[in-house]
This record gives sequence, C-alpha cells and structure tokens, in this order.
Amino acid sequence: MSVTAAQGFTAAGIAAGIKENGDPDLALVVNNGPRRAAAGVFTANRVKAAPVLWSEQVLKGGEVTAVVLNSGGANACTGPLGFQDTHATAERAAEVLGHHAGEIAVASTGLIGVRLPMDKLLSGIGEAAARLSPHAGEKAAIAIKTTDTVHKTAVAQGAGWTVGGMAKGAGMLAPGLATMLCVLTTDADLEAAALDKALREATRVTFDRVDSDGCLSTNDTVLLLASGASGITPDHREFAAAVTAVCADLARQLVADAEGASKDIRIEVIGAASEEDAVTVGRAIARSSLFKCAVHGEDPNWGRVLSAIGTTDAVFEPDRLNVAINGVWVCRAGATGEDRELVDMRFREVQVTADLAAGDHTATIWTNDLTADYVHENSAYSS
Amino acid sequence: MSVTAAQGFTAAGIAAGIKENGDPDLALVVNNGPRRAAAGVFTANRVKAAPVLWSEQVLKGGEVTAVVLNSGGANACTGPLGFQDTHATAERAAEVLGHHAGEIAVASTGLIGVRLPMDKLLSGIGEAAARLSPHAGEKAAIAIKTTDTVHKTAVAQGAGWTVGGMAKGAGMLAPGLATMLCVLTTDADLEAAALDKALREATRVTFDRVDSDGCLSTNDTVLLLASGASGITPDHREFAAAVTAVCADLARQLVADAEGASKDIRIEVIGAASEEDAVTVGRAIARSSLFKCAVHGEDPNWGRVLSAIGTTDAVFEPDRLNVAINGVWVCRAGATGEDRELVDMRFREVQVTADLAAGDHTATIWTNDLTADYVHENSAYSS
Repeated sequence: MSVTAAQGFTAAGIAAGIKENGDPDLALVVNNGPRRAAAGVFTANRVKAAPVLWSEQVLKGGEVTAVVLNSGGANACTGPLGFQDTHATAERAAEVLGHHAGEIAVASTGLIGVRLPMDKLLSGIGEAAARLSPHAGEKAAIAIKTTDTVHKTAVAQGAGWTVGGMAKGAGMLAPGLATMLCVLTTDADLEAAALDKALREATRVTFDRVDSDGCLSTNDTVLLLASGASGITPDHREFAAAVTAVCADLARQLVADAEGASKDIRIEVIGAASEEDAVTVGRAIARSSLFKCAVHGEDPNWGRVLSAIGTTDAVFEPDRLNVAINGVWVCRAGATGEDRELVDMRFREVQVTADLAAGDHTATIWTNDLTADYVHENSAYSS
Repeated sequence: MSVTAAQGFTAAGIAAGIKENGDPDLALVVNNGPRRAAAGVFTANRVKAAPVLWSEQVLKGGEVTAVVLNSGGANACTGPLGFQDTHATAERAAEVLGHHAGEIAVASTGLIGVRLPMDKLLSGIGEAAARLSPHAGEKAAIAIKTTDTVHKTAVAQGAGWTVGGMAKGAGMLAPGLATMLCVLTTDADLEAAALDKALREATRVTFDRVDSDGCLSTNDTVLLLASGASGITPDHREFAAAVTAVCADLARQLVADAEGASKDIRIEVIGAASEEDAVTVGRAIARSSLFKCAVHGEDPNWGRVLSAIGTTDAVFEPDRLNVAINGVWVCRAGATGEDRELVDMRFREVQVTADLAAGDHTATIWTNDLTADYVHENSAYSS
C-alpha cells in the first residue's frame, strides 16, 4: 500500500531510461489535498546533493504538492549545472501537474558525481504523471531501488486515518539518517509544524539509530506529506507513535536488506548515565569492524565490544562493564563471565546487550555484520 | 638490528609455550646502562589491559631496566587476577635480573579475556634471561608477532649515537596509537623528560596517523629506553628527528602488513585551516568503509571521499573541494574534474590528496583498503 495507503494520494513508478538496464527508475508521489502540509528531514552530511539543497528550500514553505524521485543517479557533487537539473525537474513536474515548482520536492539516489540524463528524466515525468493512480504505491517503491534486493513499504492505521510510506536504502546507512530516501504520507489533518515535530521524534529513534557501515550519504531525505483527506486531526502522541511505527518498520527493513550482510545485529545499551551516552556507546560498537567481523564468524567476541566501549567518553568504570550476547552474560565486571560456548549465534538476528552499570538510561542501535560480500558489492559498485 | 642496535642493550626471544603452536612468544629487552631513563606512550582506550596499567605506573618513575613482552595473550579484561599475573611477571624478571620490579615494564598482545599460562611464562623468563645477547634484537622482534606476517625493525644513526626499535601490529590499528607493541632503544645520554618529549613528538605524527581499521586496542604500548652508553647527549631536534624516523619506518611497516590488505593508502590533506582539521578529515576518509572498498576495487571513487569529508566539522566549502587520486584531479570545485579513466590504481600504494581550499595546513594519514581477506581473517581469529 505504501504511499497510497492514505487517502488523497496518487503515485506512479516507471522506467524512464535513467538506469541503463531498463529497470524502473522514476517515481512520482502527488498529494491531491485538500491540505498539502509537509515536513522533511535531510542528511547531516555537509556535502549535500542538489536535490537535497532544493528540497530543503521547498520544505521551508511547509507545503509540498508532489515529490519526484529518481534512482540511477544521485545528482550529488555535480556543481551548479546539477542544481539547474534539479530545478528543471521541479519545473517540469509543476508544468505537468499544474502546480508551482516551489512546492515540488525532488529526491535522487545512485552514482555520485555524474549528471542525470535530463532528456530521459524530463520526458519520464510526463509519462509518470499520465500513470498516476491511487493503487501504484508499490510501483513507486520499486522505482526508487538501487542495490536494494526488495522494495520497502509500511503502513500504520489510526482511528479513521492512516500513515503509509516507502523507503529505499541498502548500504551507506549511518546516523544523521540511514542513507536512504523515504516518503511518508498521511490523510490526517495536520499543520506543517505538527508534522515536523512528529517526524523528528520518529526519525531520532528509528533511522538515526541504524548504522550499517558508518557512512553518511549526501542524499538522505525523509518527507512526510499530509493530505487532510480523512478530516481527522489525531492528537500528537497518537500520531507521532504511528509515524514512529512506520519509520521503525522501514528502518528494520533497511537493516535486513543491507548490502552483503548475513546478520542483523541489535545492540542494546543499558545502565547508561544518559540516553546520549547509550547512543554513543551503541554507535561505537556498531562501527567496530573487528566486532562486526566476529559476528559474521559467529564468534561471541566480547573483548571487541569492550574495546569499542573504551573508545567513548561515556560514563562507566571498565571493571563494572557487563556484556551479553544472545542472552548469555559472557562478560561480567569487565572480565570473563559465563561460558562463551553457551552462546548460539546461528540465526540471522544477533542481540548484544552492553550494561554500563552507570545509570538507568537505554538505547538500541541496529547494525549488520561485515562480510566479504559487502566488500565485493562495494568494490564493484561505483556510487 | 632492532632493539640491540644501540649500545648498552641485550635482548632475547624464545618460545615459552604460551602459543599453542610452539612459535616464539616471549621477548626480553634489558638496559645495561649506565643510565636507565625511559618514556612511554600507551593506548587511549579506557579499557586498558593489565600490563598497560602496570607499565604506566612503572614509567612514572622515569626508569626502566627491562621490558618483558609476550604474544599469545593480551591479558586484557582479565580482572584483578590478570593484574596479579602482570605483577608476578615483573617480580620474576626482577628476581632473575637482580633488579627492582618497579623498574620492569610488561607488554602483552594476543587474545582478550583469557588468562595467561603463568607457569610457562614465568619459567620462560628464566630461559630468556639466560639467552640475553647484544645480537638477539631480531629474535625479540620475532617473538612479539601475532598475525604479523613479518617482524618489524628499524634503526636511525646519529653522530655517535643510535636509535633502534621493533614493533608488532597487523590489524586493530587506529589513532591514539596503532594497535601494537613497540620498544625503542637508544644509547644517547638523555633524561626521562627529554625522552618523553621526543617520543610524544614522534608518535603524534607517525603511529597516531596510522588508521587501518578504526579499532583502538586495549594494549598499545610504545616504550623508549636510553642507556646513555654512547656518552653523547644529542640536541633535542636532532634526537626527536631520529626517533620520528624510526617510528615512521615502523608505522609504514605496520600498514604494509595490515591484515588482509591489498593496498596501502596515503591520504594527504592539504589546504586545511588548521593541522587539527587536516587530521580530522584524513581520519574520516580513512574510516570510510565504502571508500576503502572502492580502493580495493581500483575504482577512483572521489564521491566517497567527498561524502567522508562532509561528515566532519572542518572548515571548508563543499563547492571548493578538490580531490586527486594518484595525481589526477578527478574532483575540482566539488564536482567532476579530470577524466577518471586517467587514474592508474594497479600498484599497491594509492595516494589520495584532499584539498580543502581553506588554509595552508596539511597532514598525512595512512590506511589500507577493506578486503574480503580482512573479513575472513577477523571472522576466524578471536582476539
């Protein structure tokens, strides 16, 4: 159901010829109203792709009538001409849809440093507009895939209103947003400010806590569009919970599809003096290549977890640290705990619990193992 | 010539049975004076192995008569009993050599979280002491290897005095010291304070600028021992330059022997507003798994360099960044520059130059590519 699960939205996904292999590569999501409120969260990378620079400006107005998304090219590091390409994309969509370009967001994903084939992209927008449908949410989700092996969608239902969404991303996932594009839609009747608050709350504890390979993309974009078509204005907590549920579902799908991964690793930090400490420690563990290799080898190597914790400035005493892997406390008080032979790591999901014994704050970070397949995929794919 | 290149030092390297495969695993370095001044630099990891905690205390006295080094076990995360093991090691060496245990430094490397086989280690110290020789520097260097494929030694000559050294390390190399053990010796006649100053200057621009896999060890130790046997007191600049030369030589050997690496990557950051900015940017590039995979695939993927630069808080404007790979400026002004087909990446050494166009400070960081062999080696080796 994806971005068309909520009332008031149509979408399309087509093959415009941007990808040389002929796969779908252009998606269009249109908000048919009555309201066109929107919020967005973008990459924290200071090297931002042209569509991110453009869409950040669009979102300042608080209204988005349509989003044009393409795979097959990131339009990042393409200079002033690349920015003109994004501008022309928005102008073309505005012309076809009869709207103002200042309300058209643009998102791109694919190779960095290469100009987009604008003739194909611009004629593709006309074709996509002709195919807009309230049933094409899946097609739109398929058209934004790059190295994704599956498309990702999720839906949450409120009392008379809906939040739906699609995302792409399969590598270069790191905080400050997983490297990805995500469009969420809702028929709840909310102002831009309310959308913004709910979206920031949701991304902070979902996409921002996925760290596949420590690499932060130039193109991360999460948009939330509200049509108001349900006529219902949910209360903030209820709405934020639904947006968070959809984001969490999509984030989990990103981890499950990470390039070359054979394990999904859930790192739960407990006993932290602050939530910030818990997140810092979780990320340090998630970024240890040695630890990620050990998990790949199904080796409950708690020494590498302690090594990673020791690189942070979080509050803890080394001789009070405890670590469990899949429920077995292999490290207690900074030294050997239960028998590591008791740890069963055969399944895809691996849970690491790091207890800092310094307070009662917690955080959960998701990451993947480091595999030879990751190396192969990223040695060959120039992005 | 290693640690016995300078006058006044003897060494030994033997197989004490700590390693199950019977390889050499115990080294002893003795300073026969007349002076016994020493300085040390240790891991920045807050989770420190027992021998690091011990040797930090020893070095506070400014005098070291001998160093006991073992491979086959890191004695890290072993609790109070592990610290007692280190203490017993120093006591045994003091007894055999007729010195005070408070002047015996200890260094260990190998598996984390496992107690050392103390019976073998203690009897090995007696055997090593019996074999001390001014010609056994190479044997000592061999005995401290873990996954190293070759042993590492270096020597620099002053006017009538010498600095020599040995090091081990082949992975888990990251700033705040490469993960490694290193012992440097000199027959220059210098006080502990002068040694400390020269050693910190040297490590700051050598070992601290090697970042193989972003992982910081629990056991990093660099010691500099001075016998004064030459009777010559070199001036500070001359001496620091010699220590830096030996450290740079050893650091380069560590990179060349990094686990599973097929490329040595020299990252030169130029045009930085400060040296700190240059180092920050160099490390960010060195820690990008995507960039390191691209280098492995001989892909001059400058977009991944820009992505890494964009994650830092260094002073720069995205549209003024320039990147050269092996001398070809593939990125100019934040966008596509010269033809990437001109870049030849067939050789083991790859040079990346990142120009921030924001000042005239520079720094060089060494790293390696990320390979399937790294994953294999670190999936199987529990350390």
